Amino acid sequence: MPVISDSRENFTDQLITAIRKKNSCVAVGLDPYLTLIPDTIKQKFSPLSKESLEYTSRVILEFNIQVIDLIAPFVNIIKPQIAFYELYGWRGIRTYTETIRYAKQKGLIVIGDVKRSDVPSTAEAYANAHIGDVRIDHVTEIPFGADAITVNPYLGTDSLLPFIQTAQKHKKGIFVLVKTSNPDSGEFQDLLCGEKKLHEIVAEKTHAWGNDSIGKQGYSAVGAVVGATYPHELSILRRIMPAAYFLVPGYGTQGATAKDIGYCFNRDGLGAIINASRSILYAYAVSPWKEKYGMQSWKDATQAALIKMNEDIRNMLKVTYG
Amino acid sequence: MPVISDSRENFTDQLITAIRKKNSCVAVGLDPYLTLIPDTIKQKFSPLSKESLEYTSRVILEFNIQVIDLIAPFVNIIKPQIAFYELYGWRGIRTYTETIRYAKQKGLIVIGDVKRSDVPSTAEAYANAHIGDVRIDHVTEIPFGADAITVNPYLGTDSLLPFIQTAQKHKKGIFVLVKTSNPDSGEFQDLLCGEKKLHEIVAEKTHAWGNDSIGKQGYSAVGAVVGATYPHELSILRRIMPAAYFLVPGYGTQGATAKDIGYCFNRDGLGAIINASRSILYAYAVSPWKEKYGMQSWKDATQAALIKMNEDIRNMLKVTYG
Repeated sequence: MPVISDSRENFTDQLITAIRKKNSCVAVGLDPYLTLIPDTIKQKFSPLSKESLEYTSRVILEFNIQVIDLIAPFVNIIKPQIAFYELYGWRGIRTYTETIRYAKQKGLIVIGDVKRSDVPSTAEAYANAHIGDVRIDHVTEIPFGADAITVNPYLGTDSLLPFIQTAQKHKKGIFVLVKTSNPDSGEFQDLLCGEKKLHEIVAEKTHAWGNDSIGKQGYSAVGAVVGATYPHELSILRRIMPAAYFLVPGYGTQGATAKDIGYCFNRDGLGAIINASRSILYAYAVSPWKEKYGMQSWKDATQAALIKMNEDIRNMLKVTYG
Repeated sequence: MPVISDSRENFTDQLITAIRKKNSCVAVGLDPYLTLIPDTIKQKFSPLSKESLEYTSRVILEFNIQVIDLIAPFVNIIKPQIAFYELYGWRGIRTYTETIRYAKQKGLIVIGDVKRSDVPSTAEAYANAHIGDVRIDHVTEIPFGADAITVNPYLGTDSLLPFIQTAQKHKKGIFVLVKTSNPDSGEFQDLLCGEKKLHEIVAEKTHAWGNDSIGKQGYSAVGAVVGATYPHELSILRRIMPAAYFLVPGYGTQGATAKDIGYCFNRDGLGAIINASRSILYAYAVSPWKEKYGMQSWKDATQAALIKMNEDIRNMLKVTYG
C-alpha cells in the first residue's frame, strides 16, 4: 500500500468536516459481544465448526459489516475496542483489521480504542502499528490503519512522543486517557499532587503535547479521553485543554445523558466526540427498543437508538450553544 | 483445548520451582527487530514475496523458535513484547501466539508484555484473552495462553480486578506497572501526593491487591514492574511490596548492571525476574560479543551473553545473600 500523503489535512480538520457534513459527533463503539450478536448472523456460519475462534471471528466481521452499512448514513466515526477482538486471538485481530478496512471504504473515521503505552522504543512500534506504517525492505505496509487511537499517559512524555510524532507525520490523531469513565477512576487520577489533581496535571501536559498539532479549526490532533460520567471534572478539563478534542465514553449503558455531556463542548459547539457502544449495537435488547423491536428487527432498533442519540445531542447543543 | 486445571500451584510457586531448577531468574525479552534478525534466517524465506507482513511474520517465528531452542537450557522465562508483533498486523499476532505455544512446549514460562488496561468490562476481555480463556457455545478456547502479563494501573482498582481474578482462577500472574524504566517515568509516577510519591501509592495498592494470591513460598501472583534503572526507588519499593515478585526491565541495553539490581531481591535471594532483550537476542551486534563473534555466529554470541548475564546475577546474589 502507498504511504499516506502528508498533504492531507490535520486530523481534527478532517474530523470537523465530517461532523458538519452529517451533523453528528457520535462515535459508535464496535464492541462485539458474541452472545448479543443476533441469531440471523450466527446462522449464516453454522453449523459450528471445530475452529471456534475462526467461526467467532467470521461472525463478528459479518456483524460489523452489517452494522457499518446500517449506521454509515447517520454517523462519521466508529470506535472498535480492540480488547473484544483480542479475546478471539489472532483471528479476532484479523477481524479488527478487516473491520477498519471496511469502515474506511465506507468513508468513516476509525478510532482504535487500544489504550496502548510503553517505553519509547516500544511505543514507537505501537504507534507505527496502529496509526503509522512499517517499512519491510523496499515495501511500506500499513498494519492496522486506524485514523486515531487512545493512549495511556502513566509512563510520561517520552512514552507519548512516538505517538504524537507518528500522528503528526500521518495526519492521524491520539486521545490521551485523562479522566476515565469507570467508578474507580478517581483512585489515582483524582489524587491531589500539591494543589492539583493528577488528572488535571495530565490534562495540562496533554494541552502542551498538542501545541504543535493544531489544525485550521483550532483543534489539536492530541485529544483527551474524558468520561461522561464525571460532568463536574468535564467542565474543568474543558478549560484546561481548550484545543483538545474530547473522546467521551460513558453515554448510554454507563449512565450518562445528553445533559451530562454539555460541558464537553466549546462555545463553537465543537470539541467532543460522544461514544456509545452497547446501547446502540444491541439496542434490540434494552428498553425502550426491546419492547418495540425484537432481535429479529435488531437493525430497526439500532437505527432508532442511533437517530435518537443524534437528536438528543443536537437538541442539547442547540439549546446550549444556539 | 481443555480448561487449565485449578489444581496447579500458585503462579509464583511454579516460577520459583523453575528458577531453582535452572538457577536462573533471567527473562529473555523476545523483541523482534527485523533489521537485526540474522541473514541466515531471512534467507530461508527469500525471495521476498509481495506479502511482506506474511514474510516478516514467518521470519520472526523462525527466529523465535531458534532462539527458544538456544536459550531453553539456561533460562526459565521469556517475555515477548507484543508491540513488536502488532507492528506486523494480525499476522504478527499469529506469530506472537505461535511463539507462546512453542515456548510452552519447551517448558518455559511466558510473560506477555502487553501493558493492557481498560474499564472493568473491557479489562475482563483482555484478561480472558491473554491469561484466561473464552467460552464459545460449548467449546472453551485459549486465545493466547501466556502465564502472566503486565498491566497498567492508571484506571484504578476496578480496572485491575478482572486481571487479578482471572489470574487467581487460572493460576496465572500479573505484573502491575509501578515504576517504569524510561527516562521520563518520574514525570507522573514520582509526583508527590501528600507525603508519598504516586508510584509508592500504586505500590501500596499492588501489595494489597496481591493479598489473596499468596503462594506457598510467600510470594503473590500480583507482581510489579520496577525499572532496574532506578536502584534507589527499587530498594524502597522492595520494602513496600515484600510479597510481590518484581519484573525488572532495563538490564543491558538500557544501562543497568548486576550491581543496580541487588535491591530487587529479598533476603531469600528470590523476588525478582531480571529481563534483558536486545543485549541477548542481538548480542552478535554489540561489544564485547561483536568482536568475538559475527552475525554468522549469532547463536554463540547470544549463548555467551546469556551465560554471562546468568553468572553476573548469580555472583551478585551469592555475595549479597550468601
